[in-house]
Amino acid sequence: MDERRLERVRENMARRGIEQALVVDPLSIWWLCGYYTEPYERFLALYVPAEGEPTLFANRLFPDASGCGARVVSFSDTDDPVPLVAGVTAADRPLGVDKELAARWLVPLMEARAAAGFVLASDVVDDARSVKDARERELMRRASATNDAAMAWLVEQVRPGVTEREIADGLLGEYRRLGAEGHSFSPIVSFGPNAADPHHEPDDTAFAQGDMVLFDVGCRQDWYCSDMTRTFFTAEPIEHQRRVYEAVRRANEAAEKIVRPGVTFAEIDRAARSVIEEAGWGPAFNHRLGHQIGLVDHEPGDVSATHDEPVRPGQCFSIEPGIYLPGDMGVRIEDLVIVTEDGCEVLNSYPKGLTVL
Amino acid sequence: MDERRLERVRENMARRGIEQALVVDPLSIWWLCGYYTEPYERFLALYVPAEGEPTLFANRLFPDASGCGARVVSFSDTDDPVPLVAGVTAADRPLGVDKELAARWLVPLMEARAAAGFVLASDVVDDARSVKDARERELMRRASATNDAAMAWLVEQVRPGVTEREIADGLLGEYRRLGAEGHSFSPIVSFGPNAADPHHEPDDTAFAQGDMVLFDVGCRQDWYCSDMTRTFFTAEPIEHQRRVYEAVRRANEAAEKIVRPGVTFAEIDRAARSVIEEAGWGPAFNHRLGHQIGLVDHEPGDVSATHDEPVRPGQCFSIEPGIYLPGDMGVRIEDLVIVTEDGCEVLNSYPKGLTVL
Repeated sequence: MDERRLERVRENMARRGIEQALVVDPLSIWWLCGYYTEPYERFLALYVPAEGEPTLFANRLFPDASGCGARVVSFSDTDDPVPLVAGVTAADRPLGVDKELAARWLVPLMEARAAAGFVLASDVVDDARSVKDARERELMRRASATNDAAMAWLVEQVRPGVTEREIADGLLGEYRRLGAEGHSFSPIVSFGPNAADPHHEPDDTAFAQGDMVLFDVGCRQDWYCSDMTRTFFTAEPIEHQRRVYEAVRRANEAAEKIVRPGVTFAEIDRAARSVIEEAGWGPAFNHRLGHQIGLVDHEPGDVSATHDEPVRPGQCFSIEPGIYLPGDMGVRIEDLVIVTEDGCEVLNSYPKGLTVL
Repeated sequence: MDERRLERVRENMARRGIEQALVVDPLSIWWLCGYYTEPYERFLALYVPAEGEPTLFANRLFPDASGCGARVVSFSDTDDPVPLVAGVTAADRPLGVDKELAARWLVPLMEARAAAGFVLASDVVDDARSVKDARERELMRRASATNDAAMAWLVEQVRPGVTEREIADGLLGEYRRLGAEGHSFSPIVSFGPNAADPHHEPDDTAFAQGDMVLFDVGCRQDWYCSDMTRTFFTAEPIEHQRRVYEAVRRANEAAEKIVRPGVTFAEIDRAARSVIEEAGWGPAFNHRLGHQIGLVDHEPGDVSATHDEPVRPGQCFSIEPGIYLPGDMGVRIEDLVIVTEDGCEVLNSYPKGLTVL
């Protein structure tokens, strides 16, 4: 059990008036007690009371959990874990539950009256996870350095006839060679108008010289995630294309420039969005500016108009404005940043000036 | 909207006394109305009333859902979908919810009093999905034929020095060459004693001649999943190894032999387990015999001692007994079967007789 992290979670619980919490996100459990397994449809949870020893509920099929620093309650595939949990929770108090807790467990826990009410409480862990400590910042830097190197490799794969899927499929091997464990999300490789769909999945579209090329990729290395987007030309852009590209680049840089403690996530979103709106493409920037990132690529607390909390040192998130013109083109430029004491550190160094491959 | 499938779901709803259901499993939504997107942390749900038009709730960032045959309610990243759902549900009746519905949506729906109580109701869809129609059976056969071919490829990769991870990483390309979209689950490649962990993840263990080799792999092809395990020797087995292998093979065949409509899942589990118990390794077969499979590799309704429903024609599941001897060896032999009118069809034809590579 990482006592400092547990303490930060308990401070958040006290602030929210939550006396007991049930954590089910496997990465939150790992972050707290160093035990990791992917439970799939089986039950895995860490019960955290305001005081006293936490309890880990783990199926016997999972790797051995002894040594994780929590009391361990084991059960087999033919046992129902719900009564086991209800036997540990305080039935006369509300239970804070993880946002990831599936109805398959939550509804039976309610029916078993395991607590006096159930409230969403993942934020007590998510908020603590959001602020990266020195070791975590170093790992975020390394994962993004690997991603920079992978982007250089991606660019070399662009040749007439290659398909989006071929490049995307080859990226895993490159990440491994660079020391990463694998992808942090399914890579996006988009040629030509395919880039106008921000969530385009690589398909059999073949590259033809002149197509624009968008790569949105990320790796996981030593548990921590990277995420970066670059968009390239492969022929001299016409004026319209150049203006779209430069609007996105300026939006990206305008947002990165204002990040410092105290500025809100919404203000950062606004800084980028204003640039694109003033350039005349406001409606074509149809998503939030970014998302927090760490042990998973999308962590809670997005960089959007509705998130008006100030950013804090140690928080890490993406800045990824885009302009999407269906049937025509799409541009997105994305970096990760970590908030510092007086600004931010941009984790990606891969150039973002307009480039013709 | 697939009206026949919707009708089967509604029959199940009527049987359960459920007048409205909220489906969130993206594959269940696809199965019902042909619309697929992976929502990640965003909200996607299909509301199915006992009568009248279903409603699909979809973020505007998702692919266009018009044409899916349901009424579509769209919203953007800055909208809260909970009031939109509460505006459509009947607040004076219980709402059947998908087991996959995350607390992040379920708790706010409860707080918004979107219904008079919430009950787990995925089984109304899962039960319908469990029985494959003729088209689905054909796709299950094809995915398993691809998996048979992939097993032949895997065997060719075994050579001194190759690592588990290298073989596992190469499998995706082979699946693609064979016409599959990708993996149906993360492939298991285990050398030597690593096979004693049924969920071993491929690592940098290098193959040495004489190691036993276990492959547990599956692909997704035209949406449907395959899943097969074979275990090989690479030196003449000693008597102990041969006895373990043959106990598992006989367990697999004993279970496959008794599958027919009316036999319960528990009886099928017992048929395999008895063979292993009689051979003296009962405790070393430490998991259920199998799981149903279709659009995902693990579908609800497992083949285990606690599942005493009879199997029905069209149901498809794995038969995968194993013996796991930590530090020593592990053997698992797995096929998929489809229940027919008078028995079952084994989808995998890759040989399972003791083989020395």
